[in-house]
Amino acid sequence: MQHRAGKTVRKRSQKSGLPPGSLVHIGVQRVEKTKITVISYDETQFTEQSFDSVEACIPFRESPAITWINIDGIHQTDILEKLGACYDLHPLVMEDILNTEQRPKVENYDDYLYIVMKMLHAGGTDVEVSTEQISLVLGRNHVISFQEGIEGDVFGHVRERLRSEQGKARKLGADYLVYSLIDAVVDNYFLVLETLGEQIESLEEKLVTSPTSETLRAIHYLKREMIFLRKSVWPLREVISSLQRGDSPLVQDATRLYLRDVYDHTVQVIDTIETYRDMVSGMLDIYLSSVSNRLNAVMKMLTIIATIFMPLTFIAGVYGMNFKYMPELEWRYGYFLIWTVMILIGVFMLIYFRKKKWL
Amino acid sequence: MQHRAGKTVRKRSQKSGLPPGSLVHIGVQRVEKTKITVISYDETQFTEQSFDSVEACIPFRESPAITWINIDGIHQTDILEKLGACYDLHPLVMEDILNTEQRPKVENYDDYLYIVMKMLHAGGTDVEVSTEQISLVLGRNHVISFQEGIEGDVFGHVRERLRSEQGKARKLGADYLVYSLIDAVVDNYFLVLETLGEQIESLEEKLVTSPTSETLRAIHYLKREMIFLRKSVWPLREVISSLQRGDSPLVQDATRLYLRDVYDHTVQVIDTIETYRDMVSGMLDIYLSSVSNRLNAVMKMLTIIATIFMPLTFIAGVYGMNFKYMPELEWRYGYFLIWTVMILIGVFMLIYFRKKKWL
Amino acid sequence: MQHRAGKTVRKRSQKSGLPPGSLVHIGVQRVEKTKITVISYDETQFTEQSFDSVEACIPFRESPAITWINIDGIHQTDILEKLGACYDLHPLVMEDILNTEQRPKVENYDDYLYIVMKMLHAGGTDVEVSTEQISLVLGRNHVISFQEGIEGDVFGHVRERLRSEQGKARKLGADYLVYSLIDAVVDNYFLVLETLGEQIESLEEKLVTSPTSETLRAIHYLKREMIFLRKSVWPLREVISSLQRGDSPLVQDATRLYLRDVYDHTVQVIDTIETYRDMVSGMLDIYLSSVSNRLNAVMKMLTIIATIFMPLTFIAGVYGMNFKYMPELEWRYGYFLIWTVMILIGVFMLIYFRKKKWL
Amino acid sequence: MQHRAGKTVRKRSQKSGLPPGSLVHIGVQRVEKTKITVISYDETQFTEQSFDSVEACIPFRESPAITWINIDGIHQTDILEKLGACYDLHPLVMEDILNTEQRPKVENYDDYLYIVMKMLHAGGTDVEVSTEQISLVLGRNHVISFQEGIEGDVFGHVRERLRSEQGKARKLGADYLVYSLIDAVVDNYFLVLETLGEQIESLEEKLVTSPTSETLRAIHYLKREMIFLRKSVWPLREVISSLQRGDSPLVQDATRLYLRDVYDHTVQVIDTIETYRDMVSGMLDIYLSSVSNRLNAVMKMLTIIATIFMPLTFIAGVYGMNFKYMPELEWRYGYFLIWTVMILIGVFMLIYFRKKKWL
Amino acid sequence: MQHRAGKTVRKRSQKSGLPPGSLVHIGVQRVEKTKITVISYDETQFTEQSFDSVEACIPFRESPAITWINIDGIHQTDILEKLGACYDLHPLVMEDILNTEQRPKVENYDDYLYIVMKMLHAGGTDVEVSTEQISLVLGRNHVISFQEGIEGDVFGHVRERLRSEQGKARKLGADYLVYSLIDAVVDNYFLVLETLGEQIESLEEKLVTSPTSETLRAIHYLKREMIFLRKSVWPLREVISSLQRGDSPLVQDATRLYLRDVYDHTVQVIDTIETYRDMVSGMLDIYLSSVSNRLNAVMKMLTIIATIFMPLTFIAGVYGMNFKYMPELEWRYGYFLIWTVMILIGVFMLIYFRKKKWL
Repeated sequence: MQHRAGKTVRKRSQKSGLPPGSLVHIGVQRVEKTKITVISYDETQFTEQSFDSVEACIPFRESPAITWINIDGIHQTDILEKLGACYDLHPLVMEDILNTEQRPKVENYDDYLYIVMKMLHAGGTDVEVSTEQISLVLGRNHVISFQEGIEGDVFGHVRERLRSEQGKARKLGADYLVYSLIDAVVDNYFLVLETLGEQIESLEEKLVTSPTSETLRAIHYLKREMIFLRKSVWPLREVISSLQRGDSPLVQDATRLYLRDVYDHTVQVIDTIETYRDMVSGMLDIYLSSVSNRLNAVMKMLTIIATIFMPLTFIAGVYGMNFKYMPELEWRYGYFLIWTVMILIGVFMLIYFRKKKWL
Repeated sequence: MQHRAGKTVRKRSQKSGLPPGSLVHIGVQRVEKTKITVISYDETQFTEQSFDSVEACIPFRESPAITWINIDGIHQTDILEKLGACYDLHPLVMEDILNTEQRPKVENYDDYLYIVMKMLHAGGTDVEVSTEQISLVLGRNHVISFQEGIEGDVFGHVRERLRSEQGKARKLGADYLVYSLIDAVVDNYFLVLETLGEQIESLEEKLVTSPTSETLRAIHYLKREMIFLRKSVWPLREVISSLQRGDSPLVQDATRLYLRDVYDHTVQVIDTIETYRDMVSGMLDIYLSSVSNRLNAVMKMLTIIATIFMPLTFIAGVYGMNFKYMPELEWRYGYFLIWTVMILIGVFMLIYFRKKKWL
Repeated sequence: MQHRAGKTVRKRSQKSGLPPGSLVHIGVQRVEKTKITVISYDETQFTEQSFDSVEACIPFRESPAITWINIDGIHQTDILEKLGACYDLHPLVMEDILNTEQRPKVENYDDYLYIVMKMLHAGGTDVEVSTEQISLVLGRNHVISFQEGIEGDVFGHVRERLRSEQGKARKLGADYLVYSLIDAVVDNYFLVLETLGEQIESLEEKLVTSPTSETLRAIHYLKREMIFLRKSVWPLREVISSLQRGDSPLVQDATRLYLRDVYDHTVQVIDTIETYRDMVSGMLDIYLSSVSNRLNAVMKMLTIIATIFMPLTFIAGVYGMNFKYMPELEWRYGYFLIWTVMILIGVFMLIYFRKKKWL
Repeated sequence: MQHRAGKTVRKRSQKSGLPPGSLVHIGVQRVEKTKITVISYDETQFTEQSFDSVEACIPFRESPAITWINIDGIHQTDILEKLGACYDLHPLVMEDILNTEQRPKVENYDDYLYIVMKMLHAGGTDVEVSTEQISLVLGRNHVISFQEGIEGDVFGHVRERLRSEQGKARKLGADYLVYSLIDAVVDNYFLVLETLGEQIESLEEKLVTSPTSETLRAIHYLKREMIFLRKSVWPLREVISSLQRGDSPLVQDATRLYLRDVYDHTVQVIDTIETYRDMVSGMLDIYLSSVSNRLNAVMKMLTIIATIFMPLTFIAGVYGMNFKYMPELEWRYGYFLIWTVMILIGVFMLIYFRKKKWL
Repeated sequence: MQHRAGKTVRKRSQKSGLPPGSLVHIGVQRVEKTKITVISYDETQFTEQSFDSVEACIPFRESPAITWINIDGIHQTDILEKLGACYDLHPLVMEDILNTEQRPKVENYDDYLYIVMKMLHAGGTDVEVSTEQISLVLGRNHVISFQEGIEGDVFGHVRERLRSEQGKARKLGADYLVYSLIDAVVDNYFLVLETLGEQIESLEEKLVTSPTSETLRAIHYLKREMIFLRKSVWPLREVISSLQRGDSPLVQDATRLYLRDVYDHTVQVIDTIETYRDMVSGMLDIYLSSVSNRLNAVMKMLTIIATIFMPLTFIAGVYGMNFKYMPELEWRYGYFLIWTVMILIGVFMLIYFRKKKWL
């Protein structure tokens, strides 16, 4: 996970001192080679092509159809530079696309909108959640999306719907495509939250049956995961809200309704994260008081043992003394009497502790 | 309860990848069969009918009287789809009605308002609170309400008042009916809060008389219940406030006064929830310090026993030594003297502990 | 106190299902019989009368003088209903007057303002604070005040001033009378805060000298009292602020200055409550760390005793062994030597503990 | 200090029931006799006089020069009443001047501004901080300042500058004088913060070297002091901000720049208070964990002693038994053998504890 | 570090009582002698000169090229006074430049903007972070920057870019230069955060492997460092935001885009600080619960030892009694039998503790 202290920022320092707009890739290289996929569609037609070089994208610039260029892998800065030049992207936008440590945000550059989001990947059985930065550029009739290239394509469903003419996907404009991509990312959050929810549930069971210091570590791990999730999702709320209420002519009124819907989903995700945070905090409290309770149990046991055997050992000690004149020692049944006394003391102690509910 | 981690979100993932507006029921199926009840009334007349199929509702569309269609059970998506088509509901609205994990909200679709609320059901002696999603659609002279169909009808009183011509119910419009339904839901919150209040009270008594780790678990359970309630009620405040202040022509000025009233009730409910939260937090503090206090008591007991018997056992041990020359052993009253010394030490210790207020 | 969980809301459920505006008294009946007092005054004259029935109030409706109707006891709903009819009060207002679980609020009904406040009563030596709901209706030249009828009249001073022509009371309008009543309630808060302040002070002394688990309970009691006070006073701030800044023609500019003054007092009350809350929280911290400190002291004592006597008992045990050949036992001064050794060990231990500052 | 619970409010109750604007002094009488000092100056001349009676101030009313009337001691209400009458001060202003429990605030009475501030006095070696209420009235060309009269004059520097024609003091108007007085008060806060800072530093050293329960009390004392300071300084921020941005014609544009400067200083003071609060909270955490650590150390010592001597005492006990047939007792070197065994056990235990890092 | 209590404010008190605008250096003197560097450039030319006296700067006043005057070391107030006079800086600005305890802020003086920032220096292997105050004055075509003169020049990169004609640095105006300087400072924050991140990471490892009270101190040290960082960076956000959105004609639209970029970076820095704070808080929790866990372990060991040996010692004591008639003592295998019994008891206890998971 990238929120490990140090790792997050380590690479950032390579850029220190460079002029603004310098194209330096900050982050982890995820794929071997940048993959470029271009989908061009309108209500009547649909084409899908893959390219190795960015020059192939240029003809689509002038196409009246809606063009969706998807870039998988952002470490080849030369490719991105050419694409940026072709679509007139501001150097600061190009810089932000390459820097995978952005906060989710939307920026309005008159001709186009630039949107940054965080995709979350929850690895199978593993607890770790990793993030992938998704950048979107929305122009009048083109959308460019940049992924880091982590395996598992969340945009597959969107592509499928475009291909199959399902829903309104092909009837509406480029802004609806951007909505679809945001919706795909937010839908994916629910999957990650499910995984986390299951982890919380299984941890809670462990907490009740057998809390160990391992459990404590797991709780803290989840807590940190929550901090991390919150940081990734929280700003998205504002992003979608400003898309929906903003006055950019690039977003049509019909799409705003859909953005309101995805905004609601984001709020729901944030709500769930907050609820999980509260639950994890509650688990920490339970853990700590179960530790106190166990200490209490241990101390009670010690006290019971000491309270029973200390007086008895004292009595045995007394009759182990070597005084010349100790009348009891001479008694015929002295030994049996003393056993009776000791057993009575022991039984009395046990009754006392039972009454005090220590046993 | 549905806020169990994992359960809340598990079903949500079935929809992942579907286009927006896809009608998939998310949640638990509560009834066998969807029940449709149509009430049509104006100041002079009142009819109430039950239907199995949605086609029967169509004639009411054109009726000048106020029509209230109540749907019990939302898992039969085909029925809902037809109804949506008949009343021109937006696909996103239909989607939200079917997804029972919505936050309370109000959405303005020019021709109609769409309102989501959460009904709470506190099961008899049980601690668990379950929620039911209530969706309302307010048109010019019709109201459509969607319930999940949990047993126990909170709208019965509203129906009764419409039948009996009691109050102003039949003189005012569809917006007043919506107000009545919201009011019925909020009134119901007070009942749930009462149940919780009684649980808190009985838990507090237990906390004072005999706190066990069971009590701790109950406190945490209540705490979580509060998180859950808050999540259900808090957004409703905003919903009612925006209905009251909003400028939708569907809500008349006369009704706004009533909405202000139900708004006040919602604030009161939230206030009570917050007070309960504070009380439950205070209970946790008391529990933890009572654990510390008991540890103190246990340790004091151990220390008293050890402090009294260790010196005594030592003395007994001394006179159990086998040295050839130990003058005391030869004394005539050595044994009785040593008993006196030991009893004096014991009494002195007891006085000392009493003075220290340990006894 | 009414914030006991359960009690607050229990009665509320009686109203569940009734139409809005139903007149049901919610709360505790405080007096046998509703008492109606009517004061009519202007700059030149003053009359004060008591009535049993509400009909006697009707003539005052048309009087050009300022009329103040004070109702003591609100459980006789028929009387209130008639009064409401006479002064054209909205059914929702009448409902709120009868429901003693309102939050402080102000509502503007064009012809009149409706204000709800909470009066606090701190019972003599007792810790409990009880509340009484005060409702005020401010019309053009009449004020109607509703009290629950708890003994002890905080409005006595206002009456006195009207009678004696003291201050500007009789020169200014009905709005100034309302200000005077609010001022009387807020002034009363200072008295309650004094009582609480004294309780905190005496509790603090106890905390330093002899903290018991009784102290803990008292701290928690005060904490809860603070939650309760805050809930009663906090919304009043907003109420007065909106009266002062609002644009109701019923409040004249001259009176707004006075409202600003009482607003400042309310803020001061809230400030004091917050300070007390912080102080009580600090007391809880002190209590908990004093419990830890005492545990430390107990454990030190145990450790000192054990560390001194365990080695000594061991030595005594060694020379109590029955080996055939134990040279020391034969020594002439073996016994005295062993005593010397044991005393040296004891003294050494004591010096060690003194150096460690445990003694 | 005045924030002792009870003391703060006790005197306030004397005013309960009096009409608004009643002149009652609330607080502690600080000086024997009210002292009146009048400074009159413009760019060319400067006079400074002391009076006993307020009548002497009247001629200055009409003077074209700037008049600064300073009142030391506010318990002689008759003097203040006359002054208020002479300068047309509203009764509510006079009441607030006399009530030394005001929050800092500014009020705009068209003809004049009324400002309340809190001066802080940190007594030499003592920890206590006491407050003095400073009231300022800013008219067109006069300033009236009211002090409670605590020894030590913080306005001396301002007077000095007026006398010596240093800075712009005499060139600018009455508003600049008010700024100078506020600036003097805020400058004084830095001195108090220094004293507190030194206390925190010395407390921190004690915390590291030898934390006692005395340290805990000192930490809590500082914490409370912080609450108190915050309450005194926080509202001043708003006061200065509203002076600076407000549209009162009494404050000239040239002065607003200076007010922005003193506003920055106030924010800096608040920042420092918040930082100190965080530091003091951190100290409490350290204290509590050092208590836990010491408990751990004590328990380790006890456990080490018990773990070493219990088995040894057991062995000694075994060979103290009086069985007829115990072969070891007959052995020639049995006694020495048993000593060897016991020493080995002891050494082994010590090595074990050293490995566990308990020693 | 300057946030040590007392040190922060100590020097501040020297200014107490001086008129506003008095030039007194508050802070630590960092360099021997003030160094003045003047860079003058436009699109075609670039000159860079160093001076000892401020008079040499005067000719640049009238130059049409962009002038950047950098002052290293601010303790020589006479030099700064002359410079201030030359560039018409307000006395309050000069005062703020000299007072190194400013909060980051921006002030608009029509002809110029005055900006204060905090540069952070993280010393190599050391944990301490020190701050340096950077003041910037932005005029129409000049920028004056004031540094305290700590070694290590963060503006070197900016100078380099101006020299080398790299980027747009020389094509854009003085506002772009100010942006570059702010960007350099913010870029530097990332380096400091990296150092802190590494410290957190290494501390976390220690926490898991071997937590000592040293670790606790380090955690608290980091916590305080975070408070300090936050105080330095948080207000910068507002500064940049108001520069970007403000309507000062000194900032051109082209530069605003770049300011938005550096604003995003600042938010990212603040986000990271908050995440680190949460992580450090979590570490404290882990530390405290590991202390509790170790106490538990210690107590378990004690209890195990006591529970095994107390009964055994008691049995040995019993057969050490000297009663005349104790049948067991006479038995042939009594001694071996008793050993068997004692070993059985010991084994049973061990099995019991293993079952309880204490071993």
